[in-house]
Amino acid sequence: MLNSSRLTGPLQAADETSRLYRILARANQIASTTELDDLLCEMLDLILMVSGGNTGTMYLLDTHTNELVFQVVRGAGDNTKLVGQRICATDGIIGAAVQEKQAIIVDDLATDVRWYGPVDEGKVILENTIAFPLMLRGEPVGAVQVFNFSQKPIQLMQLLGNRMASEYEKTMLLRKSHQHSQRLQALIELIAKISSTLDRDQILNLIIDQARDLLNAEASSLFLLDEKQHELILYLSRDMYQTNLPPLRMPAELGIIGDVVRTGQTACVDDVKLDPRHYAGIDEISGMTTKSLLAVPLRVPTVVLGRERGISQSCIIGGVEAINKREGHFDKTDVQLLSTLAEQAASVLHIADLYSNADELFLNTVTVLVASIDAKDPYTEGHSQRVSDFSVAIAEQLNLSPELRHSIRVGALLHDIGKIGVPDTILSKPGRLTAGEYAEIKKHPAIGANIIQGVRLLQDELPALAQHHERLDGTGYPHGLGADQISLIARIVAVADVFDAITSDRPYRPGMDIATALAILRREAGHHLDERFVEALIAAYQNGKIKPQLRKSPAG
Amino acid sequence: MLNSSRLTGPLQAADETSRLYRILARANQIASTTELDDLLCEMLDLILMVSGGNTGTMYLLDTHTNELVFQVVRGAGDNTKLVGQRICATDGIIGAAVQEKQAIIVDDLATDVRWYGPVDEGKVILENTIAFPLMLRGEPVGAVQVFNFSQKPIQLMQLLGNRMASEYEKTMLLRKSHQHSQRLQALIELIAKISSTLDRDQILNLIIDQARDLLNAEASSLFLLDEKQHELILYLSRDMYQTNLPPLRMPAELGIIGDVVRTGQTACVDDVKLDPRHYAGIDEISGMTTKSLLAVPLRVPTVVLGRERGISQSCIIGGVEAINKREGHFDKTDVQLLSTLAEQAASVLHIADLYSNADELFLNTVTVLVASIDAKDPYTEGHSQRVSDFSVAIAEQLNLSPELRHSIRVGALLHDIGKIGVPDTILSKPGRLTAGEYAEIKKHPAIGANIIQGVRLLQDELPALAQHHERLDGTGYPHGLGADQISLIARIVAVADVFDAITSDRPYRPGMDIATALAILRREAGHHLDERFVEALIAAYQNGKIKPQLRKSPAG
Repeated sequence: MLNSSRLTGPLQAADETSRLYRILARANQIASTTELDDLLCEMLDLILMVSGGNTGTMYLLDTHTNELVFQVVRGAGDNTKLVGQRICATDGIIGAAVQEKQAIIVDDLATDVRWYGPVDEGKVILENTIAFPLMLRGEPVGAVQVFNFSQKPIQLMQLLGNRMASEYEKTMLLRKSHQHSQRLQALIELIAKISSTLDRDQILNLIIDQARDLLNAEASSLFLLDEKQHELILYLSRDMYQTNLPPLRMPAELGIIGDVVRTGQTACVDDVKLDPRHYAGIDEISGMTTKSLLAVPLRVPTVVLGRERGISQSCIIGGVEAINKREGHFDKTDVQLLSTLAEQAASVLHIADLYSNADELFLNTVTVLVASIDAKDPYTEGHSQRVSDFSVAIAEQLNLSPELRHSIRVGALLHDIGKIGVPDTILSKPGRLTAGEYAEIKKHPAIGANIIQGVRLLQDELPALAQHHERLDGTGYPHGLGADQISLIARIVAVADVFDAITSDRPYRPGMDIATALAILRREAGHHLDERFVEALIAAYQNGKIKPQLRKSPAG
Repeated sequence: MLNSSRLTGPLQAADETSRLYRILARANQIASTTELDDLLCEMLDLILMVSGGNTGTMYLLDTHTNELVFQVVRGAGDNTKLVGQRICATDGIIGAAVQEKQAIIVDDLATDVRWYGPVDEGKVILENTIAFPLMLRGEPVGAVQVFNFSQKPIQLMQLLGNRMASEYEKTMLLRKSHQHSQRLQALIELIAKISSTLDRDQILNLIIDQARDLLNAEASSLFLLDEKQHELILYLSRDMYQTNLPPLRMPAELGIIGDVVRTGQTACVDDVKLDPRHYAGIDEISGMTTKSLLAVPLRVPTVVLGRERGISQSCIIGGVEAINKREGHFDKTDVQLLSTLAEQAASVLHIADLYSNADELFLNTVTVLVASIDAKDPYTEGHSQRVSDFSVAIAEQLNLSPELRHSIRVGALLHDIGKIGVPDTILSKPGRLTAGEYAEIKKHPAIGANIIQGVRLLQDELPALAQHHERLDGTGYPHGLGADQISLIARIVAVADVFDAITSDRPYRPGMDIATALAILRREAGHHLDERFVEALIAAYQNGKIKPQLRKSPAG
């Protein structure tokens, strides 16, 4: 007896210690996962196991609202419906455990006035409970409640609970950090997408759609400032917006966005109803109810243009809004992401404008110069512009590539530029030309090509100048090139040029009517003109794409 | 005796259990930090404490090299010099513990043949040791060795060790994730910087410098493909490169970078000596020894140009290299970051080229058209170009802004464009003009302004056309504007125009010499011409910035 007693004590203790180590080793094993749900469930199961309980719940404390949020429910009373539900952090036995920062053991739930929960869930009758807070750095961050326990190893349970809290925190930090990386990654991809287009509308749509997704918002919208009209032009995300509607406009000073655009300050509003700047008219326009809102300015940074162009100064060109955060509220990261996106978008929009301006400047300047050369002779007024329009109509009819179409537009516009080198007296001579004068006129393709050949970026257009009087059968000028030597652009311009010449008045005859003109073109097709482009011009005419010169009165 | 024995057993056990809980609670507390160094030191201290040892080391297993790396050294034998040192993972007592995946207790170190370490470190004599592996998910990830222990609570020590391993892993994951976020953040800022310039050289320098920093490399370089010459043009990071040297060139097929540019495949090379593609000549050029290398292609994505310009196709324009990773080797994240940077940079370089091309196209086309108009009269050949050059020289002399300088260049180039509307016969009339003919000539400013006024983006230049014959005293034409009504651009162009007229031959007189011309300008300054710009032209002439027309021979 004595011997056995003397042996049993240490042996029991050794057993107990050995069991404890197994439990702690199991806790280590559980903690080695970074899967949050697995971790919490298995840790709660372990706590249930050491207490012999058959039902357990784990809550996290929301310190903003002082509420306990059901996070995990395990065991016989497993009721996943509870997950996500909230109770006041001072309510019930669990609330008391959190408030008192210590474990509470209730051996008979039915007699405890603090218990207000569903004692009988149908599946399981809850008889007793142990509730204890999860402590991290001395403060409660959650709680665990075990029901129908058979043992009360409080210290061990709390140890496991605190471990659970610590692992939860680290796993959440890791998850948030991963999510942050993923959002930055998404932002980078979005920036790459935005910067691979110089098409203004496409940039606007990309920003709007992607801002919504990036910020997990219900919608987003973009406002561009029209300084002259003192208005904001409103673009909504595409799902809310019928693209055939013209963009909506509102006075520039209205709304939270008006303030953001004016001041350059970001606005992050949890409930717009409480913000005096909110302009309810926007909701009427969009048909949605704005609750939360994050609005940032579209601020173009200082852009170094290079060479002689200097620097374009920083300015605010509008704003971007994300509307109604889908979960929670817009936070610091959202502000950072949307601001970065907006700045990059503004920069790309600005560069798209610069590019578009440079392009417009070229085309407009060439257009007015060419028009002024044509205008020296009233009979050729508007000729180059019309030949350009007709040539582009042919290109469109044949669905040629946009690049080629642009080249055709420019080449056709310039095709007669060589007339600069032909004396006015010959160009605008009222009567028939002498052979010598006609020889002078026939120099204009070569003169034109000679003028333009020094322009590196007009090499594709050069044949429109040099070859537009060549003919497929080799009877054209200046070189009498054969069909296989005449470039596509020159063949197209030749058709457009002949059509405009026939339909325009001349000193010696009025312009012909369309039917006659088309008949003449058809007659020339194959030996003088390229049949494919003659047919394309006729088809374009039939589609209403060709507007020949208005017939002048016979007296004019 | 019996009683005491019966009581002592459980009491001792309870004491023991209570101590165990305190130790485990301490472990939880230690684990609640995310400071890695604190965590490892304190955990090792705890292990030392439970064993009564006075010196402890912790190693991490590098599975790539099968080495144990000293991570922490604590206690009396604390020797921080050891940290970072490596031993083979099969060597010594610690190696045996890792290989056998279990604890090894050595009661007398001096007799153990496996012990090869410094038994006597001077400060402390190492008598005995416990070595055990740190296990995570069944595999060793490191090891702990305790010296001069007085107790052997192996289970507890291993429990704490495994906990340490698990916390280490999570903290490292978190740290890596944070670092990843920080690098993405840095990349985003870099992209924003790159896209706020259209200046090619600035973009190139930004890429090179920042790629080096972003990848923690010793240097980086950028190669642009010159397809015509079949060469790569080499740009080195600025610290290695004297900017007054012309860019270096090498045959396009040479080196790892040649392969990357040709194939579009990334190359990540730990030791270039082992890579047959490596071209040692690059090291001779740069003067540094390349060890590791990460090279990615500069691939321009498909860019939507908008409107009629269509799409510019994806192409490889060169490559970017990061050279010699400062710590470890280039990894997947490095590849991802450099690839993203390279793609964005290529895109921005491409857009900068597009913008620069559009600008060049405009200026070159206007230049040749204007030149061809001037060339109709041999006496005005090259006039507009010279007036433009002189005007820009005045602007540069006065350090006017780049934007204004550009405007002056364009306006001056176009100033006589109205001559298109004046009959050739008058423009190139050999003798003196009649009053009527002179009246026709005097229409050219208004005609020019009329031609250009429809061009939205030439409004700043318009006065150069409309007002370049106005005079400060109101005696100019067409409007006889007063000094305060004549714009800056017109005053500058007027000075340049008069200077070129005086120094050029005329049908009725040869061009005057410079001294006479400058004297005439000085005489006109104040009442006809703006003195400030006259003086600027004279200063520019004295600085060698003004090249007047070469004097034609009297016969010419």
